[in-house]
Amino acid sequence: MEWTRGDLLGLEELDRAEIEMILDTAASFKEISSRPVKKVPTLRGRTIVLFFFEPSTRTRSSFELAAKRLSADSLNISTSTSALSKGETIKDTLRNIEAMQVDIIVIRHSSSGIPWALSRLVAPAIINAGDGCHEHPTQALLDMFTIKEKLGKIEGVNVTILGDIAHSRVARSNIWGLRKMGANVTVCGPRTLLPRDIEKMGVIVTDNLKDGLKNADVVNVLRIQRERQKAGLLPSLREYAQRFGISSEKLRQFARKDLLIMHPGPTNPGVEITPEVAESKTSVILEQVTNGVAVRMAVLYLVAQARDETKEEE
Amino acid sequence: MEWTRGDLLGLEELDRAEIEMILDTAASFKEISSRPVKKVPTLRGRTIVLFFFEPSTRTRSSFELAAKRLSADSLNISTSTSALSKGETIKDTLRNIEAMQVDIIVIRHSSSGIPWALSRLVAPAIINAGDGCHEHPTQALLDMFTIKEKLGKIEGVNVTILGDIAHSRVARSNIWGLRKMGANVTVCGPRTLLPRDIEKMGVIVTDNLKDGLKNADVVNVLRIQRERQKAGLLPSLREYAQRFGISSEKLRQFARKDLLIMHPGPTNPGVEITPEVAESKTSVILEQVTNGVAVRMAVLYLVAQARDETKEEE
Amino acid sequence: MEWTRGDLLGLEELDRAEIEMILDTAASFKEISSRPVKKVPTLRGRTIVLFFFEPSTRTRSSFELAAKRLSADSLNISTSTSALSKGETIKDTLRNIEAMQVDIIVIRHSSSGIPWALSRLVAPAIINAGDGCHEHPTQALLDMFTIKEKLGKIEGVNVTILGDIAHSRVARSNIWGLRKMGANVTVCGPRTLLPRDIEKMGVIVTDNLKDGLKNADVVNVLRIQRERQKAGLLPSLREYAQRFGISSEKLRQFARKDLLIMHPGPTNPGVEITPEVAESKTSVILEQVTNGVAVRMAVLYLVAQARDETKEEE
Repeated sequence: MEWTRGDLLGLEELDRAEIEMILDTAASFKEISSRPVKKVPTLRGRTIVLFFFEPSTRTRSSFELAAKRLSADSLNISTSTSALSKGETIKDTLRNIEAMQVDIIVIRHSSSGIPWALSRLVAPAIINAGDGCHEHPTQALLDMFTIKEKLGKIEGVNVTILGDIAHSRVARSNIWGLRKMGANVTVCGPRTLLPRDIEKMGVIVTDNLKDGLKNADVVNVLRIQRERQKAGLLPSLREYAQRFGISSEKLRQFARKDLLIMHPGPTNPGVEITPEVAESKTSVILEQVTNGVAVRMAVLYLVAQARDETKEEE
Repeated sequence: MEWTRGDLLGLEELDRAEIEMILDTAASFKEISSRPVKKVPTLRGRTIVLFFFEPSTRTRSSFELAAKRLSADSLNISTSTSALSKGETIKDTLRNIEAMQVDIIVIRHSSSGIPWALSRLVAPAIINAGDGCHEHPTQALLDMFTIKEKLGKIEGVNVTILGDIAHSRVARSNIWGLRKMGANVTVCGPRTLLPRDIEKMGVIVTDNLKDGLKNADVVNVLRIQRERQKAGLLPSLREYAQRFGISSEKLRQFARKDLLIMHPGPTNPGVEITPEVAESKTSVILEQVTNGVAVRMAVLYLVAQARDETKEEE
Repeated sequence: MEWTRGDLLGLEELDRAEIEMILDTAASFKEISSRPVKKVPTLRGRTIVLFFFEPSTRTRSSFELAAKRLSADSLNISTSTSALSKGETIKDTLRNIEAMQVDIIVIRHSSSGIPWALSRLVAPAIINAGDGCHEHPTQALLDMFTIKEKLGKIEGVNVTILGDIAHSRVARSNIWGLRKMGANVTVCGPRTLLPRDIEKMGVIVTDNLKDGLKNADVVNVLRIQRERQKAGLLPSLREYAQRFGISSEKLRQFARKDLLIMHPGPTNPGVEITPEVAESKTSVILEQVTNGVAVRMAVLYLVAQARDETKEEE
């Protein structure tokens, strides 16, 4: 099989073979970051633009390190320093960056769908680093990579995604990816934070934590945004913690002993997860971060390869 | 001929042979950015500081990519993160950067003349990336490069610069450069935005768009700064658009069919230019951006070469 | 002797042989920055994170250039763009950076002791780039390097540190380092800015400038923070300048003719030092900056080496 996509926009549109190919490529790249000399010449002389319209340390740093470890040149553009303050539209800015003959644009934006719209407008590869409440494909890929690494497979694994499903691009990308890979997905959270018709995505839905954890092999605990409370969607963080927060006590009562604990970070300690659980033996939160660099190296590499082959054929 | 200048401050002080040398060098560098591996070892191990006192995505990114494609090390310093917040003067900061043994300092500053003052104070090469309302030499060089590429020559070409001439460093550098290269230059705009005595620069002056476009081969449409309106120099953006905004309608009435449309970007759509014209067949706005990287590579290279030769002779 | 420390936290904990090893290594690296190609492959493929919680142009740039001249990959993280705005703790952020398999984290933070706390929590090397009012070891090392370069030795040299001793991490690191190297240290400043019990650090204390300069071979003039005045610790900057500011007049009256003038920068011209003195023949303020890059290259190199050897033994 060959990778042919020139963009990575979301997991909804990928098929199982494509997801497997990214995960396999990431596995082969993972070892590079554990060497003293963490660098291969694979993307030497390629230009990768990191275009972030929302503040981000983790995802931006992860992509920047992935680019550098592949020997690509990277360029940071963030909103605060951007000419967008001059009233320029994002479309104009992207076309300008394109005109500088860059190869890949990694974009994060608060509006859903922006990466798709831009991919139709410009020639460089677009990689979605999170668009609004819609998709965050590299996060879901690193989550799946971690599950596969820990449990040996994704097919048939029971994964529960816990928290604010409605506003979570992490949840959405995970559901699409996990379902394609044959996992059984349960979403769990307060009714106000569960989207209507979410069952149509092929998931089991519950607003009861006990039911949510009962058969789970993996729980992916989402970050609670404090803003939701202001919007009246959450009674209080304390009440949320009581009903849905993951603590050792609740795990003892409701979950398998070896339940794998995941979280996209950063955690709100004591809200959706206690520090004790976040740092427990079955927590793989930091391994997710390590795997994130490998997955992003894989995505940058595959997309760049596909572009080269398209050009050669022209 | 040999390039001997250790700085690039403005076009007023360059002679025709020097401008031609930059344009020829840029032509030889342009191809590099279209390769898959966009990188040559020319300036490996040189340190280039990008010192921007005004926000800028385009110019900063263009210089940063030019530096990276020549394999130089680049260092970003912008006002917001700078120690200047501690009350340090720009002179002190520059001397400190110099003491770190950097080779080239690319500087943008809101005060006219700053690059000249600094070039007398410090040893590294100074490249002016825009000083106040005074000069923006690399912008004018990329404009001339684009004209030459499109029309085969600059000598004898009729170029109209349209808009806020009085406050535009782009206009000023273009006038100096184009006149030296033998182009015929017309400046056109409302009386309040035309500097007194501008005729002395060797240009034709008009406040009538029809006259401005009549014989033009090229129109370089300047960005209108909304601040001018507050200062009482512009009646309203709408009235400006009606009298001086470039639309398909006005082009049909007043201009040659193949009039080359240029703009330094970012455009104010519907003010100085309609989106339709900005994206029309004879618009070369994005090619200007592409050429900007090549021109900046040429300038970095020539200035670095001149410095090496001076040092060898010492 | 071999370097074995995997961190550089402060000078209090180093012994004389270790300080000498850093200074000797820096001497061998200094020449690199004066070459046209300022780059050696020593740390190729290592990842160095510059994690600054306080604004800094000089120290950040100096470390970044040191990293680049050793061919390491560097990643900038500053508070303004950091996920810490999401309420994340510094410990969590550091653990995440660690999980990306970085080699060295250079950290500046306004709280004393943070680098020590973090070095116990994470595996990458921690280099302290200034913690609160506590230590700034690389500044003191470059100060000592400059003294040794200028006077041929540190042992027996009379160094006076002048100004706000109480709040100065530069003073504290210099005192520890200089005393270990056998220099005689005098601290001089207004009573309100001299810490109680400072004599216990093995220094002579005076609040009289004449006494402070009498036998000095070197004066290290500290920056006066205007904030101290608000806190009631300084009568007025003008009065400070009159009593403790270094001027040509006072040097003529009180000091040796060849007194070496040092300052960590940036100066407050006319407060703690006059511009005339700062730019005089015996001022080595800019040479300190040049030496700073060499010292930081040495520190990055030694710490990285020590880590490699530890790993090999495992």
